[in-house]
Amino acid sequence: MSGINNLRRSIVLKRRPKGEPSAADFDIIEETIPNPDPGEVLTRTLWLSIDPYMRGRLREEQTYAAGVQIGEVMTGETVGRVMVSGDPRFHAGDFVVGARGWQTHTISQADQLTKISADAAPLSTYLGILGMPGATAYAGVTEICKPRQGETFVVSAASGAVGSVAGQLAKRAGARVVGIAGGAEKCLWAQDKLGFDDCVDHRSLDLQRELQTACPNGIDCYFENVGGAVQQAVFNLLNPFARVAMCGMVSQYNAQEFPPGPNLGFVVGKRVLIQGFIVTDRPERLTEWRAMAEPLVADGSLAYREDVIEGLENAPDALAGILDGRNFGKLLVRVAHEAD
Amino acid sequence: MSGINNLRRSIVLKRRPKGEPSAADFDIIEETIPNPDPGEVLTRTLWLSIDPYMRGRLREEQTYAAGVQIGEVMTGETVGRVMVSGDPRFHAGDFVVGARGWQTHTISQADQLTKISADAAPLSTYLGILGMPGATAYAGVTEICKPRQGETFVVSAASGAVGSVAGQLAKRAGARVVGIAGGAEKCLWAQDKLGFDDCVDHRSLDLQRELQTACPNGIDCYFENVGGAVQQAVFNLLNPFARVAMCGMVSQYNAQEFPPGPNLGFVVGKRVLIQGFIVTDRPERLTEWRAMAEPLVADGSLAYREDVIEGLENAPDALAGILDGRNFGKLLVRVAHEAD
Repeated sequence: MSGINNLRRSIVLKRRPKGEPSAADFDIIEETIPNPDPGEVLTRTLWLSIDPYMRGRLREEQTYAAGVQIGEVMTGETVGRVMVSGDPRFHAGDFVVGARGWQTHTISQADQLTKISADAAPLSTYLGILGMPGATAYAGVTEICKPRQGETFVVSAASGAVGSVAGQLAKRAGARVVGIAGGAEKCLWAQDKLGFDDCVDHRSLDLQRELQTACPNGIDCYFENVGGAVQQAVFNLLNPFARVAMCGMVSQYNAQEFPPGPNLGFVVGKRVLIQGFIVTDRPERLTEWRAMAEPLVADGSLAYREDVIEGLENAPDALAGILDGRNFGKLLVRVAHEAD
Repeated sequence: MSGINNLRRSIVLKRRPKGEPSAADFDIIEETIPNPDPGEVLTRTLWLSIDPYMRGRLREEQTYAAGVQIGEVMTGETVGRVMVSGDPRFHAGDFVVGARGWQTHTISQADQLTKISADAAPLSTYLGILGMPGATAYAGVTEICKPRQGETFVVSAASGAVGSVAGQLAKRAGARVVGIAGGAEKCLWAQDKLGFDDCVDHRSLDLQRELQTACPNGIDCYFENVGGAVQQAVFNLLNPFARVAMCGMVSQYNAQEFPPGPNLGFVVGKRVLIQGFIVTDRPERLTEWRAMAEPLVADGSLAYREDVIEGLENAPDALAGILDGRNFGKLLVRVAHEAD
């Protein structure tokens, strides 16, 4: 579509969404594909990653990173193919990954791109299990949760790009892994394909009781992706010396006012550790994770699932969907076919 | 009083208090002073420490330590003098510290007691700045808050036994120290005698604004002793990578139902660490702290203040008072005069 003409399409922020974002909050801009200057690289975007953190970038106030300004191209991780390179480190046809935004074609400085191989694993996995979400799971599990043999590890948004990896890593560490996900289908997949010991549907009428049944020995590690009622239910079951990796609280990303949280009295008596983290604080974690996980993805030791939306113009709806849990697996926008 | 006859008086739990504890929740039992068996030591209690954690021991449900049973002697740290020793390590006249409960005289196993010297520092300080409260401050500041030169360190219950030490330690580490205390008198003392840079009265009509004024660069470390509205006000001002030592939440120790807490969304984006701890998990911390702090107390480098209640029978009221912030400094019950 956009690839067969000479136009670049970019999705820019039109206005800050109130509540759930929609296509009406963005504009699509078409312009002639620019030429790279010396030192620059022109890439064609193949895959765009859609991640919950993007909602924070739409806010007026800064979260951990500066927000997108009105009229600016929306940020996001992409996999692309080099079309024209003005830098000796890249050549036409190379596949690259980078945070290059919601565009069909991007002009990048060479150091904004990382070369990847199409042979090691599917290109799209560099945005999911081999990318920022996978590295996030790795950081939270190994540096904060530190699950030990026989401990109970709970992860919310268990079928998502981060949660699915976190749970598998905890399983490999010998923990009893219990997922929390939205709906029976996701739960079934987490048990069948990810190997989780149990999975609780957060839409259940009695989440607290079901979680307690799934965690008869309490909860030692919690990988937090959602917040809200799920967080409270998990916190009620934490064991002494439990570790909570605070990765995200997607249930409230569209909120205009944040609801109150759990009373923290238990943190003292139970000596609980609650630690927030952002994977990009230590970029070396991504490199380390990628090297470690590539063979495990290639040989099927680590499972993943992708949910693919076709066409850049559908990225805003995809973002709305992930915030509402409508995706099933790592959410990707296919901006152009790899063979195009 | 009790010392001039042959009776031992003990305060035992009569019923579990609902809300604020009072003398009516306890019984005073009088009995003949027992004789120590071989290996046992009879001590006369001089000082009894009153600490907020004691409220947890009155609850039916276990907190981090088992509760006191109905009819059992109430637990508490004491300083005493050996009257009769059935163990070669102790002799009549020795001063000892131990967790020997609300009694005028105690029978102890030798390993339940630690010998202290009346020469190094006043005996009562072994229940305060040189005792469990001081070691608590030491553990929370050095292992969790880790204040650095120029950072802003906030401590609540700033004039209390723990808070006053925590703030002084942070000050010695080069931090800007802001206390939160109940009333102008306590705040004045924290600034004048403890050397805090500022102090905010939590009863202020606009705590949030006053705290913000006192912390123009935000808050990097928080030593939490109170919870409630103070906690929320501090959390609103935490900087990225802030560390919160969760030592206690005294504002809710009398509560029958716990109020909701702060929304934890900020923990993710700001990569905040929240860590609960109990000093007795690592008894070596107390030994280490005592050795380090004795000379600093002796030469006046570390300041402290004591609030002394006369007579064991007033211990229940003293406990009610500390939970309501009516004490000013380390709260102690003088069970017998040192010279008696």
